[in-house]
Amino acid sequence: MTSTVLRPTDRDSGTPAAHALLDVLVGWGIRRVFCCPGSTEAAFLDALVERSGEVEIVLTTHESVAVAMADGAARITGQPQVAYLHTNVGLANGVAQLTAAQLGNAPVLVLNGLKSTALQGRDGFTTVPYPRDLVRQHVKWARQVSSADSLAADVARALRTSVAEPAGPTWIGLPQDVLESTAPVDAAPESRRAADVPRNRPDRDAVADAARLLAGATRPVLVAGGDVARHGAVDALVTLAERLGATVLGEDRRGFQRTAFPTAHPRFAGWYAATHPAIADADLVFFVGCRVFTEFEAPAGDEFPRHATVVHAHVDPTEVGRLYPVHRGLVGHLGAVLDDLLAVLPPGPAPGGAGGPAAVGAPTATRAPTAVGGVSAAPAFPGHVGLGPVVAALVDGLGTDTTVVLDATTATPALLSALPQHRPDQVLLSSSGSLGWGTGAALGVRLVRPEQPVVAVLGDGSFQFGIQALWTAAHHRIPVTFVVLNNGSYSAVGSALHRFGGAARRTGRWPGTDISGPRIAEIAAGFGVPATRVAGPADLAAALRAVRDSAGPALVEVLTGPDRRTDSDPARQDGGAGAPS
Amino acid sequence: MTSTVLRPTDRDSGTPAAHALLDVLVGWGIRRVFCCPGSTEAAFLDALVERSGEVEIVLTTHESVAVAMADGAARITGQPQVAYLHTNVGLANGVAQLTAAQLGNAPVLVLNGLKSTALQGRDGFTTVPYPRDLVRQHVKWARQVSSADSLAADVARALRTSVAEPAGPTWIGLPQDVLESTAPVDAAPESRRAADVPRNRPDRDAVADAARLLAGATRPVLVAGGDVARHGAVDALVTLAERLGATVLGEDRRGFQRTAFPTAHPRFAGWYAATHPAIADADLVFFVGCRVFTEFEAPAGDEFPRHATVVHAHVDPTEVGRLYPVHRGLVGHLGAVLDDLLAVLPPGPAPGGAGGPAAVGAPTATRAPTAVGGVSAAPAFPGHVGLGPVVAALVDGLGTDTTVVLDATTATPALLSALPQHRPDQVLLSSSGSLGWGTGAALGVRLVRPEQPVVAVLGDGSFQFGIQALWTAAHHRIPVTFVVLNNGSYSAVGSALHRFGGAARRTGRWPGTDISGPRIAEIAAGFGVPATRVAGPADLAAALRAVRDSAGPALVEVLTGPDRRTDSDPARQDGGAGAPS
Repeated sequence: MTSTVLRPTDRDSGTPAAHALLDVLVGWGIRRVFCCPGSTEAAFLDALVERSGEVEIVLTTHESVAVAMADGAARITGQPQVAYLHTNVGLANGVAQLTAAQLGNAPVLVLNGLKSTALQGRDGFTTVPYPRDLVRQHVKWARQVSSADSLAADVARALRTSVAEPAGPTWIGLPQDVLESTAPVDAAPESRRAADVPRNRPDRDAVADAARLLAGATRPVLVAGGDVARHGAVDALVTLAERLGATVLGEDRRGFQRTAFPTAHPRFAGWYAATHPAIADADLVFFVGCRVFTEFEAPAGDEFPRHATVVHAHVDPTEVGRLYPVHRGLVGHLGAVLDDLLAVLPPGPAPGGAGGPAAVGAPTATRAPTAVGGVSAAPAFPGHVGLGPVVAALVDGLGTDTTVVLDATTATPALLSALPQHRPDQVLLSSSGSLGWGTGAALGVRLVRPEQPVVAVLGDGSFQFGIQALWTAAHHRIPVTFVVLNNGSYSAVGSALHRFGGAARRTGRWPGTDISGPRIAEIAAGFGVPATRVAGPADLAAALRAVRDSAGPALVEVLTGPDRRTDSDPARQDGGAGAPS
Repeated sequence: MTSTVLRPTDRDSGTPAAHALLDVLVGWGIRRVFCCPGSTEAAFLDALVERSGEVEIVLTTHESVAVAMADGAARITGQPQVAYLHTNVGLANGVAQLTAAQLGNAPVLVLNGLKSTALQGRDGFTTVPYPRDLVRQHVKWARQVSSADSLAADVARALRTSVAEPAGPTWIGLPQDVLESTAPVDAAPESRRAADVPRNRPDRDAVADAARLLAGATRPVLVAGGDVARHGAVDALVTLAERLGATVLGEDRRGFQRTAFPTAHPRFAGWYAATHPAIADADLVFFVGCRVFTEFEAPAGDEFPRHATVVHAHVDPTEVGRLYPVHRGLVGHLGAVLDDLLAVLPPGPAPGGAGGPAAVGAPTATRAPTAVGGVSAAPAFPGHVGLGPVVAALVDGLGTDTTVVLDATTATPALLSALPQHRPDQVLLSSSGSLGWGTGAALGVRLVRPEQPVVAVLGDGSFQFGIQALWTAAHHRIPVTFVVLNNGSYSAVGSALHRFGGAARRTGRWPGTDISGPRIAEIAAGFGVPATRVAGPADLAAALRAVRDSAGPALVEVLTGPDRRTDSDPARQDGGAGAPS
């Protein structure tokens, strides 16, 4: 039991409610707050001075960074993390990355400093009538605190709601007058212990039925979703795969969030697609902890196993059979699901199971560019040039133990297949489509995973969206290496124009795609992040090895566009030589 | 009447609805679209290729820049401008700057590409259940187009709604399947003509009563709000001031959006505050086209004229008497309000009016830091050091004809008083509190004001929020000069901590304020914007004059923090020498 400690201050009387807020956070084991503050947060910041050492401010220079950092840290730890944002405009700036936290089931509490209650009623500066509208479809629970007395309880409730399954973000609006209240407030509610988060187990009959189906399958395929890692159940899934002699696929790339199965394991055979040979051949497919599916387009053909029996386990009942009916659903924490299945399955390889090596088929692309009739000799959008060698050099330079946060839209499929994934969560990705997530998320991951190298692999488009994270990396000296694959373009837009098959494809003009120009290494250096630019794969691995043991952040820019301009190229077109004095 | 032109394409049959969309935009005189695209915008981008030259894409690398640019251009022209954003995450990234457009009554149409209707129903990639929730409290009208047949009419309705008074943003959601529809669509509605925007006039009896009050006043004060400029009524207000012999104040700085009265005019006497000597002495105060007020805090004392008769004219009836009752309200377009008043007022100086020079009092601060008892010898937050000389050098270097876009939180009061304001809209500002607005807004202003120099004056915090605008400035070679007042801190946070009067003030530790480190000129150069860093006022004016006639963008960073570090200073603490190759 943590009770509110009333401390003397130099203010009028009593204790600012901000101290009660701190008590709750400390009671929940929260030692840092990711923050981009404004004037409404003064009481909280002041409490941090008063109680130095209890909670650290990780300062960011854009709210998107605060949210992405909290998200990255929350994904790894499973513990709640706090992003503290300022008023309506700060909240708005954090929403895009909040969608990533939501899809990643990251328990991120957004504390949102609001103007005082009276000012809200007067349409004052940085007030909006309905701040909650900005976030409520992205959070599990959203509450504007109405009095200092309920502040501690409201925040504790938000934290508990965030970690309850399915985990996800919550929002607490904190009016300035409430936060600055000096009247003694109610004691903080009981602090959290790990055992406090209840886990649900699947129905016993459902487990028996699923076990019967699995044991009876001759060509079973397990599809490993990110929640297997999130629930710490990767070892159990490996055991199940070995027990069944099943082929294992990673989940559909479009929904991939985190490594959930060791890709070097002999049973691993690539990534889910309905056209994957193992799926075409399977008599049972068991989707374990993945969404089925996060579609990029409405399906044009079969995306679901047509002939196989389908079992789907997920902690969220609404995900089971959401788009396609399944033969057997299992709702529960995946650790419990897999433990319960293993407990009732026969101890060895199933009698009818395929005990040999997985039938490894070449993973197929989840969606090929749409063929459009009547267009011939059309110039394809250039995209990344020679990405294969760059990816190879990247893998070479990173080594096998690095955690990689990916935020490189069109390069993702190639990277996902090539990057080492020995450990759970070794590769992390957002399926939100929100560019810029990776820079902040990588910093958050690194803060809670201090023993392992963390690298963010970014596209040049994503780099600009998440650029302010460089400031936090430099200021807090967080040793993350940023690798920017700079092809000078929005390749995804070019690809979409190519698929569209109209005038752009016919003429080879691609409006809205050319974002060339920035010398990204120079920009990073300006932020205080040591940086190098390399022209291609030849120098990439060495550049990565050179910064591998850096005590602070570093950035490596590699040119992958069709022109691969370098700083020494006199043909540079980007507006002349800047003259930093 | 602009009818939809059906054009042959290389696609199956018919005309993509995207062409109907283009027809509406062209019919409304829209020649450029500020865009940060994704795959859902392919049909529109392709139509631009097909119909080259009709509408230009102004590409941005962050949605906040697209919205701020559209806002800046819309403020100056009064004509609708279009920001085209991508799905839910792109929209979210634009919301903070949309609040600025809303408060500035800028007719910005946000076109928002959404995933296809079917995919929205399947919770697909980058879909949300309620996209409209993200914007509806920031726009006048929000509609998701439900079929290609209504697309043109819906967009035209949004444009008309944007320019109708009180003007403001609107939102149109465009599902990909609707935009890509090739079925022939209805003809576009009648194109807009300027005469189509009706102006309202104040009630005749209200005008007569207001004129009687004005004519009878002996010490009248006019408070000139931004809407006077927005409605092109500055000359009429000057005439009214001279006719009445009235003192003129600029509106309360907290709500300032744009220059609405020439500050060198002999009747101008500073900025509104209840404590201003002219207000204390007035027998009548006429608020003309301003909000009364946009409060930063709930008022602790008198903010409203206590003894004077108050008249308030505004185009928006809800603004009249919103927080304080007034003796006479006038609702109407301010051009009409002032013309009608001038028509019924006596032709010369009013008999009882003060015909002499304005009683110029020193403008007082709108809000002094709250005094907190019991704290002595407390270190004040440093903020900008020697800002006065910097402002003087800035004014010197800019010359008198420059349009200045301000986005420098704590330096704003000093700048607002010192900058030349001879012309309407010569100084532009957002009262939204959304940092980063200024970089994009200045670019938008420059595009529609090609004959005049435009300078954005930014704080270092704001610079980081709006940094991606540098890319657009360089790519499109837009000749805006960015001046960054770099004090290495969030001064507003420091000031709030100082006002709070707690442990921070007692100890001189200011958490959440130190954002030092970036070498902003170097960052700008990396973006292709020629840039210089100067250590203080001595070199500032010359640096500004050197770039005054640039054909493209430029940036001048001036150090105003307490330590004024320069690149040659060995004591630099920002994480080591970056090594741009």
